[in-house]
Amino acid sequence: MSDHSRILCPVLQQRIMSAEQAAELIPAGANVGMSGFTGAGYPKAVPGALAQRIRQLNSQPNAKPFRINVWTGASTAPELDGVLAEVDGIEMRLPFQSDPICRNRINDGTMDYVDYHLSEVSQYAWSGFLGKMDIALIEVAGIREDGSLIPSSSIGNNKTWIEQADKIILEVNSRQNAKLEGMHDVYYGTALPPNRKPIMLTDPADRIGEQYLACPPEKVIAVVETAAPDRNSPFKPSDEVSKKIAGHILEFFNKEIELGRLPKELLPIQSGVGNIPNAVLEGLDAGPYKNLTAFTEVIQDGMLKMLKSGTLKVASATAFSLSPDGIQEFDDNIDFYRDKIILRQQDISNHPELARRLGVIAMNGLIECDLYGNVNSTHIMGTRMMNGIGGSGDFARNGYLSIFVSPSTAKDGAISAIVPMVSHVDHTEHDVKIIVTEQGLADLRGLSPRQRAHEIINNCAHPDFRPALIDYYERALHSGRGMHTPHLLEEALSWHQRYEQSGQM
Amino acid sequence: MSDHSRILCPVLQQRIMSAEQAAELIPAGANVGMSGFTGAGYPKAVPGALAQRIRQLNSQPNAKPFRINVWTGASTAPELDGVLAEVDGIEMRLPFQSDPICRNRINDGTMDYVDYHLSEVSQYAWSGFLGKMDIALIEVAGIREDGSLIPSSSIGNNKTWIEQADKIILEVNSRQNAKLEGMHDVYYGTALPPNRKPIMLTDPADRIGEQYLACPPEKVIAVVETAAPDRNSPFKPSDEVSKKIAGHILEFFNKEIELGRLPKELLPIQSGVGNIPNAVLEGLDAGPYKNLTAFTEVIQDGMLKMLKSGTLKVASATAFSLSPDGIQEFDDNIDFYRDKIILRQQDISNHPELARRLGVIAMNGLIECDLYGNVNSTHIMGTRMMNGIGGSGDFARNGYLSIFVSPSTAKDGAISAIVPMVSHVDHTEHDVKIIVTEQGLADLRGLSPRQRAHEIINNCAHPDFRPALIDYYERALHSGRGMHTPHLLEEALSWHQRYEQSGQM
Ligand SMILES: CC(C)(COP(=O)(O)OP(=O)(O)OC[C@H]1O[C@@H](n2cnc3c(N)ncnc32)[C@H](O)[C@@H]1OP(=O)(O)O)[C@@H](O)C(=O)NCCC(=O)NCCS
Ligand SMILES: CC(C)(COP(=O)(O)OP(=O)(O)OC[C@H]1O[C@@H](n2cnc3c(N)ncnc32)[C@H](O)[C@@H]1OP(=O)(O)O)[C@@H](O)C(=O)NCCC(=O)NCCS
Repeated sequence: MSDHSRILCPVLQQRIMSAEQAAELIPAGANVGMSGFTGAGYPKAVPGALAQRIRQLNSQPNAKPFRINVWTGASTAPELDGVLAEVDGIEMRLPFQSDPICRNRINDGTMDYVDYHLSEVSQYAWSGFLGKMDIALIEVAGIREDGSLIPSSSIGNNKTWIEQADKIILEVNSRQNAKLEGMHDVYYGTALPPNRKPIMLTDPADRIGEQYLACPPEKVIAVVETAAPDRNSPFKPSDEVSKKIAGHILEFFNKEIELGRLPKELLPIQSGVGNIPNAVLEGLDAGPYKNLTAFTEVIQDGMLKMLKSGTLKVASATAFSLSPDGIQEFDDNIDFYRDKIILRQQDISNHPELARRLGVIAMNGLIECDLYGNVNSTHIMGTRMMNGIGGSGDFARNGYLSIFVSPSTAKDGAISAIVPMVSHVDHTEHDVKIIVTEQGLADLRGLSPRQRAHEIINNCAHPDFRPALIDYYERALHSGRGMHTPHLLEEALSWHQRYEQSGQM
Repeated sequence: MSDHSRILCPVLQQRIMSAEQAAELIPAGANVGMSGFTGAGYPKAVPGALAQRIRQLNSQPNAKPFRINVWTGASTAPELDGVLAEVDGIEMRLPFQSDPICRNRINDGTMDYVDYHLSEVSQYAWSGFLGKMDIALIEVAGIREDGSLIPSSSIGNNKTWIEQADKIILEVNSRQNAKLEGMHDVYYGTALPPNRKPIMLTDPADRIGEQYLACPPEKVIAVVETAAPDRNSPFKPSDEVSKKIAGHILEFFNKEIELGRLPKELLPIQSGVGNIPNAVLEGLDAGPYKNLTAFTEVIQDGMLKMLKSGTLKVASATAFSLSPDGIQEFDDNIDFYRDKIILRQQDISNHPELARRLGVIAMNGLIECDLYGNVNSTHIMGTRMMNGIGGSGDFARNGYLSIFVSPSTAKDGAISAIVPMVSHVDHTEHDVKIIVTEQGLADLRGLSPRQRAHEIINNCAHPDFRPALIDYYERALHSGRGMHTPHLLEEALSWHQRYEQSGQM
């Protein structure tokens, strides 16, 4: 790409340099706001060059450790989180990750991690208590003559990072499809309170902003050219378990439509990351629906299929999260998809005001759920971070329906997804309306805790664990302690303890 | 009140009857939507008459138990929750209560209770899965000639109940100040998705609705005249502990203003029910503030004082929650207060869209908080319901700042409010920004879980419990298990167990 055809702004052409040169401009201790959301639109060259620099610096005798704080949109990829975590280059990470090396560092205590509701991050950055952002490192699909930016395959927090950072490094990725131009909708009406105004969006298809990111050229200290694809793991193919989960959800939707409690185009759907949610989308696609809409965080493979078939009319999100096959499909047919997908910044895609107004149907994965409907979607055995809460709380609390899905067991049946008491809570009993496993669906709406326990045990728990759950519940019920949410405190977490000791709940 | 001067609608004058006669119109098993929010505006005569009827019916040999389902705005008073719970007349109660007899029934398993985010109740009722509402029983301050209603000292869910119920019973309470007329703002722009529109409110003082409740006269089956005051317990006078808590919050606000992170008029404040939150308001009133605003659920005594002194300019709420002295003060000076207080339905006073837009500062009580900032505000020792989540989740999740307050110990020092792991979660670590006890304030914003543990133990825990907390934390940290949120699963709930066994944590 030596013709610089994607960098049309003359001033910024002069800032073109190598990734290594750009990495030199990032000082130790910096707060760096990087682009990237679920493996899309993250910078692909500078983080690697920085990691090399860090490895070299830190290998010198008596080196003071060189580390930075990394703020992103959400998860990224091995070329960012992986390489920086590998060299122990990250002091603090926010607001979401799903990288195996990062995860190990978080869980062995060598990296600080704060997972946030994804809609809130930009507000926190603006309000100032996270500290000053030193550098924004942003992948874009192109730079226009006036210096404005064509966003890449995710927007995430890029608008905020560009506005907040003292200095900006841009990666211009020519591998991103040039036809992404025009698919974005960047809203410039946000403000801190008391100056906030209503957000005038009433349909997932509405456009309320600009196609480009504004960027003051004088803040740009480096422009790096890249040509590498986004990298996401392939989804596991839908198996029997996920097909059954999808089947239960379809049956539920159909009943709600029949009862007049949902329109036949449903309401805008949100679907989380993960294998099971993606499989549910494939299941929906096989259902009787037409002209659905999505108001969600990410476009997975399943959503492309739904758009193709006409099941889905339009999808609003902040990022793609496509497998290699999905990226190929999107690139090959971008003219078809262009006007059916709108990418927004994450403070809009996940905004509580909009999730509530549109009445989003939120579908997200869970790690474990307890007898009374409390959901843990982040912590393994109460202490180890899996990924983070992500946007699930934005949608589950404020949406119209919240559905949480999971196989009823994990690790080949050693772990029950239904436990007496969850070891961490991300979604309280108040926020959890529907639980679905391959065993069935528990509709918790309007039920008291004891009624919920019956639904969850009988409809969702795996038969291998059902007798032990009933036994716990019955003994708790007759323990003479509180009967609103009966528990045996001395046993409530014993399933987790047993797993830690014996590898089996 | 035999001149019926508060009942100007001729048709409805003809439906006037005694409370006993009206109570006869409520069938067993009915879903009854009652007015009432934190001891204000609840029906004062018919529930008592119904309780008598239930007692009599149920005392007959082989009587099939007569019970009803009671839906309200929030908590009520002994004349409603108390009398009906006493005769075991409530099958299912939602969405909030704080009555001692009710509480006992919930906790001994003889009453089903579902506590909801208060902003969501009307949406649930509309969406239909709670079942059909048979009867609305609503206190009003008067009936106008055209049949429209002058709301009483709370609005709560009254608009929804009136719209949803098949039949309506009105209690017209001449003890409510006639000058309440005009203080209400009932918004008729709500809808179910996909038909929702932006709510065009950008300031707590904005009026977006009507002064009266519309009510189809043909649905009204009874009108009962009453003349009894709202009944609320007096607040405990501010003690040393609550003064210290208020002091820490003031210091925090002042620092935030100094750093430019809060405007000098702060942002609209929300203050929960309870003794401590009320004391904090008194503390704020003694501070340097002028022209604050409140966007909150309830007007407590503290808010009246703040309005009087000019600390507060305007307060938007859904109900009063005044002590007997507070009611007297309000009645005596209603001309002063009339244009400074706006009462709205609770789906607007607590609306996520508005809490987020206005950037509410949410201040609520907590029962216990753990090392990592998870808050329990409802369950005693994991199993017994105290009151319910109320509106705390509406404001804490979507507001700008969420502050949770509590003495560092309860029950004369037998219980630590800071525990290794909470026994129930209402507000997740993501939603809890600031914890305050008389010991100090922990600002958790931007901190990883381990950093939060240091803040909370050192700033908030009582010195008597601090060594044991540090000991637990240190052993968890070195346990070789996950270090994101270190825990010893076998001990995590042992403080609660110990209290249950020995009366001392
Ligand atoms: C909860 C979550 C991890 C489930 O992911 P998923 O891919 O749908 O589900 P899987 O069943 O494949 O589980 C993922 C992993 O968690 C493990 N797991 C699941 N439940 C577990 C449990 N109770 N205990 C231990 N491990 C468990 C699985 O074994 C699997 O691990 P592996 O990859 O080593 O085999 C995922 O949905 C998530 O991170 N959610 C939080 C963020 C979120 O909801 N974002 C939504 C907005 S985009
Ligand atoms: C949490 C809550 C109960 C605290 O109430 P409060 O009046 O401010 O605080 P107090 O310290 O006086 O505590 C109230 C009672 O709880 C008890 N309590 C407090 N902490 C306790 C603990 N950790 N374990 C056991 N009991 C505890 C107190 O002893 C007291 O009981 P008593 O009346 O029998 O003496 C109250 O704020 C609440 O119900 N919150 C949930 C609803 C809400 O937040 N609504 C806000 C929107 S309006």
